[in-house]
Formats: sequence, C-alpha cells, structure tokens
Amino acid sequence: MDQLKPNSANSCPLTPLGFIERAATACDDCPSIIYNDTTYTWSQTYRRCLQLASSLSSFGINPGHVVSVIAPNIPAMYELHFAVPMSGAIFNTINTSLDTRTISIILKHSESKLVFVDHLSSSLLLEVVSLFPPHSKTPKLVLVTDDKEIPSSSSPPPRIPPVDFVDTYENMLAKGDPQFSWVRPKSDLDPMVLNYTWGTTPAPKGVVQCYKAFFIIAVDSLIDWVVPKQSVLLWTLPMFHNNGWSFTWGAAVVGATNVCLRKFDAPTVFALIRKHGVTHMCGAPIVLNLLSSSPEAKPLDRPVRILTAGSPPPAPVLLRTESLGFIVSDGYGKTEIAGVNVSCAWKPKWNKLPARERASLKARQGVRTIGLTEVDIVDPETGLSVKRDGLTRGEIVMRGGSLMLGYLKDPEATSKCMKDGRYYTGDVGVMHPDGYLEIKDRSKDVIISGGENISSTEIESVLYSHPMVNEAAVVGRPDPFWQEIPCAFVSLKTGTDSGGMMTTEKDIIQYCRARIPRYMVPKTVVFIDELPKTATGKVQKDVLGDIANSMSMSHSRM
Amino acid sequence: MDQLKPNSANSCPLTPLGFIERAATACDDCPSIIYNDTTYTWSQTYRRCLQLASSLSSFGINPGHVVSVIAPNIPAMYELHFAVPMSGAIFNTINTSLDTRTISIILKHSESKLVFVDHLSSSLLLEVVSLFPPHSKTPKLVLVTDDKEIPSSSSPPPRIPPVDFVDTYENMLAKGDPQFSWVRPKSDLDPMVLNYTWGTTPAPKGVVQCYKAFFIIAVDSLIDWVVPKQSVLLWTLPMFHNNGWSFTWGAAVVGATNVCLRKFDAPTVFALIRKHGVTHMCGAPIVLNLLSSSPEAKPLDRPVRILTAGSPPPAPVLLRTESLGFIVSDGYGKTEIAGVNVSCAWKPKWNKLPARERASLKARQGVRTIGLTEVDIVDPETGLSVKRDGLTRGEIVMRGGSLMLGYLKDPEATSKCMKDGRYYTGDVGVMHPDGYLEIKDRSKDVIISGGENISSTEIESVLYSHPMVNEAAVVGRPDPFWQEIPCAFVSLKTGTDSGGMMTTEKDIIQYCRARIPRYMVPKTVVFIDELPKTATGKVQKDVLGDIANSMSMSHSRM
Repeated sequence: MDQLKPNSANSCPLTPLGFIERAATACDDCPSIIYNDTTYTWSQTYRRCLQLASSLSSFGINPGHVVSVIAPNIPAMYELHFAVPMSGAIFNTINTSLDTRTISIILKHSESKLVFVDHLSSSLLLEVVSLFPPHSKTPKLVLVTDDKEIPSSSSPPPRIPPVDFVDTYENMLAKGDPQFSWVRPKSDLDPMVLNYTWGTTPAPKGVVQCYKAFFIIAVDSLIDWVVPKQSVLLWTLPMFHNNGWSFTWGAAVVGATNVCLRKFDAPTVFALIRKHGVTHMCGAPIVLNLLSSSPEAKPLDRPVRILTAGSPPPAPVLLRTESLGFIVSDGYGKTEIAGVNVSCAWKPKWNKLPARERASLKARQGVRTIGLTEVDIVDPETGLSVKRDGLTRGEIVMRGGSLMLGYLKDPEATSKCMKDGRYYTGDVGVMHPDGYLEIKDRSKDVIISGGENISSTEIESVLYSHPMVNEAAVVGRPDPFWQEIPCAFVSLKTGTDSGGMMTTEKDIIQYCRARIPRYMVPKTVVFIDELPKTATGKVQKDVLGDIANSMSMSHSRM
Repeated sequence: MDQLKPNSANSCPLTPLGFIERAATACDDCPSIIYNDTTYTWSQTYRRCLQLASSLSSFGINPGHVVSVIAPNIPAMYELHFAVPMSGAIFNTINTSLDTRTISIILKHSESKLVFVDHLSSSLLLEVVSLFPPHSKTPKLVLVTDDKEIPSSSSPPPRIPPVDFVDTYENMLAKGDPQFSWVRPKSDLDPMVLNYTWGTTPAPKGVVQCYKAFFIIAVDSLIDWVVPKQSVLLWTLPMFHNNGWSFTWGAAVVGATNVCLRKFDAPTVFALIRKHGVTHMCGAPIVLNLLSSSPEAKPLDRPVRILTAGSPPPAPVLLRTESLGFIVSDGYGKTEIAGVNVSCAWKPKWNKLPARERASLKARQGVRTIGLTEVDIVDPETGLSVKRDGLTRGEIVMRGGSLMLGYLKDPEATSKCMKDGRYYTGDVGVMHPDGYLEIKDRSKDVIISGGENISSTEIESVLYSHPMVNEAAVVGRPDPFWQEIPCAFVSLKTGTDSGGMMTTEKDIIQYCRARIPRYMVPKTVVFIDELPKTATGKVQKDVLGDIANSMSMSHSRM
C-alpha cells in the first residue's frame, strides 16, 4: 500500500471556483442572476467572471494580492466572488455600513490593491483614500455603476468614471478576455478570502480562509439546508456577511437562480417571492421579524425555506414566521468557520409536538454538519467535555476543514484561539442530553444587533477617550427589534478631573457617532458611580448584563 | 499570508466515517436499515459498527490490514462499510457471483486477514481456503448468518459457528465495546478501500481508494442525484459493486433509510416501493428492463428516482420505465473513480422535447460532477482535446479528488493509466458541442453484461488453454436482456495438432464453465478459420464486433 502515493491526477486542489465552470455547461442558459429587469444565464455569468479575472490580471493584480469590494447584493457583488479569486487574488468584502475610519483600518491592514466601490459608497471611499498619508500605497478604486438602479435611488450614477476612479466595473469587464485561463490554486490550503470580523479586540481581525474550506462548507450547507437543483435564492442576507454564508459559491453547484436585492424591504421581498418563485432565503432573526410583522405579510403560495443564524429567533417571531408558510432552520456560524456549520437538524417526530415546544427545540443550535470533524462544549480550564445536561456551561470548541487558516498578521490572536488541535470560539453554550448544543452567550465582548457583530471593547475604547469618562463597559441589552442594542455603563471623573462639568447621555452618544459606525453607537447610556468588579478587579459584565436585561425603557443616573 | 499554515484544528483528514457518528445524534431514532422484519435506527447502527470495529481490533486487525466480505445487500454488508475502516483496516468487497479460482486470486493478492462470509457463500469460501497451500497465510473466516432470512431460502443457517469459522458475525459484534474510540485516518490520503476490477488484463486489478475520495464522491453524488434528508433508498444495486456507488456512506449524511434486499426480483421491488415509500434506487440498465417488463409493473403512487450507469439504457427501456413514474438519471463511473462522477445533468428546457429526443439526450453520459476537476476527451496520440462535434472519437480522461490512489502491487498498470496529471480511462467517447460527453465504446477489452464488467482477455486466456484452440478473441454481442453477452471467436488447430478430433460450441462452453465464473462464460462460440488482423498482426476486434452485432441468434461455423 505504501507505494501508492497521491499524484497530480488524483490530488488536484479542491476549489469552489470549479463550480461555476461546471455550471456554464450543465446549466448554460438557466438563469444565474436576476436583478430588477436584468437576467443573466450561467454561461453569461461564467463568461463575465472570466473577463473580469482577465482584466484584473492585465491590471497587474497577481496571486496573493488583496482585492476588496464594498457593495450591497447587486450582480457585480456576486460575480466578484468568483472573478477575484479566478485572477489568483484574495477576495475581501467590506460591510457597507462601516465608517471611514474602520474602512481605512481594513484597507491599510489588508494592503488591498484595488477596491470595487458601489456608486452609493463612492463619496465614502473617496474620503477614505483621501485620508491615506501622502506617498503611501493607496488602493485604486473601480466604480460599480448601477444603471439599472430602481428610480427611487439618489442621483443618477456617472457613466464615465470620475477622475478618482481608475475605471468603471463594466468598462473593466468589457476589456477582459472571455477565453482567459483562470488561475487555479497550487494547493487547496492557499488563502482565497479575507473577511474582517469584530471579536474581543477593539480592532477588526482579518480572517483568512483557504479554497478547501469553501469547497467543503458550500457543499455541506447545500445538503444540510436542503437546496436542490434549480432552487431560487433571494439574497436577503448581505453577501458581505461571511460571503453570504458561502451560498454565493454553493448556488453555482445546483444552478440556483440568485435574485439580487440592493436593500431589504419587506414589501419588496414578498413581491419578489411571488414574482420569481423564491424557494430559499437567509438572514439574521431580524429578517424574520421584519417579514412576519409587515403589513404585507400574508400566507405564501408555496413554502419558502429561511435559514437564520447569529442568534436564536425568539419563539413568537419563529411561530409568526412559520404560520405564513416559511420553513425556518436555525444554525450557528462564525466568520472563522466560513459559514453555518452547526445546525438544528430537525427530527420528524418533533412535528407532533405543541408549537411552543417546537419553538424551544428550534432555538437550539444543534449538531455539527459534515464539514466539521468535531464540535464540543468544554470546560475552558480543563479542556474536558462538560456534562450533557443542558445546564452546565462551557466554551464551544470545534475542529474541521472549514476552519480559518488564522488571523492576518496576528499570530498571537491565532494561536490564542487555535490550540490543542481545536478552535476555541469564545462562545458559551450547554450540551443537551441528546447531543444538541445551545448557545447561552456569545463571547461576552460581542453584541449582536440586527445580525451585525459589534465589539463592546471597540465602543469602550472610544468611551475611554472621552475626557469626562472615568470607566466604561458596554453590554448588550435585549431589544424586540434589533435583538440586542449596545448599552454603555459609564462612571464619570469626579472633582477637579471633570472640571465640574456635567455630561449627558446625548453628549456621550454624539461623541460616539463622530467616531464609530452608527450601528455600533450605544443606544442607551447608564451613568453609574463605580463599575461592579470581581475580587481580582475584572469588570463583572454579567452583573451589568443583568441590569441591562431588567431595565425598562426609561432609565436615569443610578 | 505566508505565516498562515494549516494546523491540527483546521486540517483534520476528511473521512466518510464521520457521517455515521453525526447521524447517530442528528437522526438517532430514525430508521437506518430495514430488512425483512428487522429495522435498525441510526443510533443502533452506529453502536453496532463501533462494537464490530472494537472486536476487529481485539481480534488483531490493525490499520493497513485488509478485511474482506462476500455477501449480498444484507444489514451486515452495510454495517461493514463503516465498521471495517473504523478499525483502521482496509475494506474489500467480493462479488458473490465469482468462482473459487477468482476469489482465491483476490484473497491471495490482497493478503486479506479476515473474510466475512454470507452463509449462502460459505461452502464456496471453505473450498477457496482449502485450496490455499499448506502453511500459507490463509484468511480467517467469519460466518454471517441470516436468522431473519426469508423462509424460501435453503437450509436454516447454523447458530453455532462451524469449526472452519472463527466466529459468527453477531457473536463477534456482541463481544465488542460500543464505547470503542474508532480509528481516524492520519491523512485523508490513507487507503480505505480495495475493490477488484476487470480491465484489459486477465487478472483482476486491485483499485485502492483513499478516505478523501469517498468523502468527496459521497457528498457530490447526493447533490447531483438530488437525495434530500430522510430519503428511502432501496438497495437494488449490489453494495459489492463499487460500494454501491458510494451511496453506502452517503446514506448516513442525509439519514436515509436503507431498504436491504438479498436478491433482485421485480415483484419484490414493487412491493417494497409501496411498503416503505422508496424514493431512490440505483442499478445497471438491466434493472430498468426487468422492472418495466415485469407483469407487476404498474404506475407508481409517487415518483421514484433511479440512477443508472455502466452503459446507457436503450431508448425503449428508458421510455417504458419513465412511463411508470420512475425518474431516470444516467451517469458514468468506474471503480477507479469511486462512483458516478459524470452525469447527464438534465435541463428544464428538455422536458418540452418529444420522448424520443429526450431519450437520446438522456443516453449521453453528460458532464463532470463537482468531485472531479476535469473530464475531457482527447486524442490518445497527442493528448489534445478532440473537436466538440459529437462525432470525433477520443479517449475519456479525467482528474480530480475522487480518483484512485492506484492499483495494488501494480505500479506499471498505475503509471500506464495515470500520467501527465490525468487518468486515462481506456473508454472511447465523443464530446457534443454543448460540452456533454457520450460514450461510444467501453475499453475494447471490457464487456458489460447485466451490469458486471467482464474482461474479454480473461476469457481468451482460458480459451487459449483449451488443447484444440489455435486462436481466440472475445467481444460483446448485443442482447436485449443482458445488454451484452460474451461472444467467442475461435479458430481450431488443424492437421496433426488437433488429432483429427471435432470440437463443438458445447465443448468450449463446458470447458469455460469449469474455469471461470458462470456470468463470464461465452454464450455464443463462433468457429472461424482465421481471426481478422491488422497489418501489424493485431486482432481486429472492431471487425469481430461488427460480425457479432449483425449475427442472428442462429449461427454456424463460418
């Protein structure tokens, strides 16, 4: 047996880019993307991706370079998921709701060479690059115009690239060679994607993922979420969220139709479901809430599967959504694991249970999908599995082929969470007797609001920079709409330090607005004499969490 | 980026064995196997596999050892697909219709340590081991009794193992530890399975496949053939045929119910479809023929998907089968590529075509599935792609992660077919303008009869051993039932060599029956003065093929 070594015929690197090459043949004239009045077919999309990859190469983009995009769910955003890595470059998406400071941090840290900029983000990005120090390596900008934009949008997009842009997306694409021989990875462990995430540190961390991880998670998620051939996927989940949980690439495997959507809006979603026969959509629990509470909400003609993750949907929202004919699946994922790889595998016998029991079973995150080798909940001190009693809390750990390679330029953070052959998520959960896990707390420093991860430490570092603030701690506070909103606990400097000035909640909020993206700004500020601390001086965030939980909407200096 | 190296958390070997571990939690009390009156659940099957793997370990089976099984589609056969590799051993299935000589070749060549023997094959295997030379390493035998066997079968199975068997299957299993920690591969390129196949050489070749290949092909085939969660799979395809095209492992991913079947029989199949709500079944085209021409055939209550491969189903059989409510998919696979990885991806627009056109489209083998990186048809001389005109013939080549590691103890055969980064299948096909391939000829030395590969060179070597035979060549002859049957062309020795004796077709057939498995024996013998040859002296098998094609059922000395 020992003489049988892998060779170049049988050990070709796994890559999700091969999916679109195959789709161009197997699904040639089936619709790939629908956006407003535009429809592309799979052979067109493949051809456009080859052209763009070719143009990127001609532009000087080489394997290992980082190419970024800031755009909502428009066709260009979908195409770039294939086209950028087909040029050999590493693909980086940027959340459209970030502020100039954060985008600037990302572009500098990633050393991005080129940014594709949706026209609605163009002034933002022009501001970002204007802030780069002179003579520094400023990324080039390509303008993504959106000629087919719905009329209600802002000013008409420019057709000729403004001077600050090196080109427009369509111009660049048109110059490319549709016969381009796309760049295949040398190893399936080569980096393919860079996604920034907010964890327990104020600065975002760059999660680097390899080709193999996306091959595995894309295929795995199609099976787990039951996405058969010729499904119709409505893009209610931003593709910049962890690459749309890797369904961007997965859609090409089954020749799904990608219905693109610039902005989430319940009436539009219901109209698109009817018009295009949508079968699948993803989103944070807030999407379920917006849909089910919309005045447009009425029972669907055909069932539509919704996959939700991030935080478990509240039982009333779940029941309301399901009563309309949506089939809700709940899962758990992180940027570091390339998608949703823990999911609440549903058992037929549970269908007979009362609605409330079904909702509480569905709120559990569940079991690993086949892309992971292990998921467990362990005592962080001993590394041993906790009791399977649904009560004993521990840290969620995992290992498997869809885990990231690590954090870019941060070996310390990488080795801190990837050790002993496992990835330590920082999230707290319990294991039920049937082997299904349930999250009890995301990492204590992460607040999830409307599906976005917010780092409490990032907000805290801004608060600490305020001249009047003595101590600050930020926790999540439950909110019926956003699931959680950031709630700041602040103690002020006293005596001469403060200069005897008064500071109000409004002052603090305005101070934050000038410095961090709007969605991260605390919606509530609680003034407190002293933060509760442990004997060793650590702030007791759990105590603050309890206070935030119990607060009525009105509050005052405590 | 370069500092981001794979580590033990993110580069765990891919293995299909993890599928059953997950199924034990996610599908715990859902049915895994149904056989006559016995039903197992997924948690029971996982437990039984662990017990058996544990017993194999205790018995002295170590990683790298080969463990064989000769059995039809009974529960033990399914369990062994997991249990044997869970002990770290390499799993080898043996076709139940082979004869003692061939089985003996396989057991010696593979150095098999242990053989699980279905009770109906027990006398055959006892004969095989009795023929091993004294003091040679004879494999140990374990008897698989079948207490739940349908009453019509032969004598009741023994409950205590006969002296020649080291144990019975159930006894051995009962001794095992259900908490056994199964042996995970060190690398996903480690060998997992050994399957013998008949190619262009008289002796069978041992195809060695690794863990990764089965992970990929199992998942890939579920997506390609649309096998959703909780499907019901009726085992009309022998699991010893290329591990049931890897659906053995795949079934555990989706928690499918495996309906086992000792022997194919159309009335039983129709009864099982109704009784268990079968959704999927596989088989050679002969299965379609047997089903659709059965007196029991009547329209199905619900559609059942049939995947067929090996050779394209004849249009009338296809149409008759589909008219009953079966959805037929056609594919192409070989033992060397672990399953069916070229398939006729169906396009919705084709549904509008007339039945005959649909049938001719469906008879094409199609496009690669995502488990392969490339499939092409090339000129064997130049290695360049042939014209995509549906006419120019060339050799089918492929590369990808589901290709075999190579042939056991046969580096020459391995390097002959795996070269220049490709696997040369030996099969001849054409590429249509739309990128779909169609097989024109299996390798000229392979005859496919009733789904079994038969090596014409193996039959020829037997014919040449006959004292009266001067020259012999065997080709396939079309048959309405078996698709092809072996047809021998023989020239006899003349003058003194023959001793003046006459030899009849019956003599030749009887001579073969004593030496090769019954299904390989030529059904027709054509006596010919001299075999047609090329200028360089090669037998012109294509000429003989034409003769065989044109022959009426009656024939005589030519």
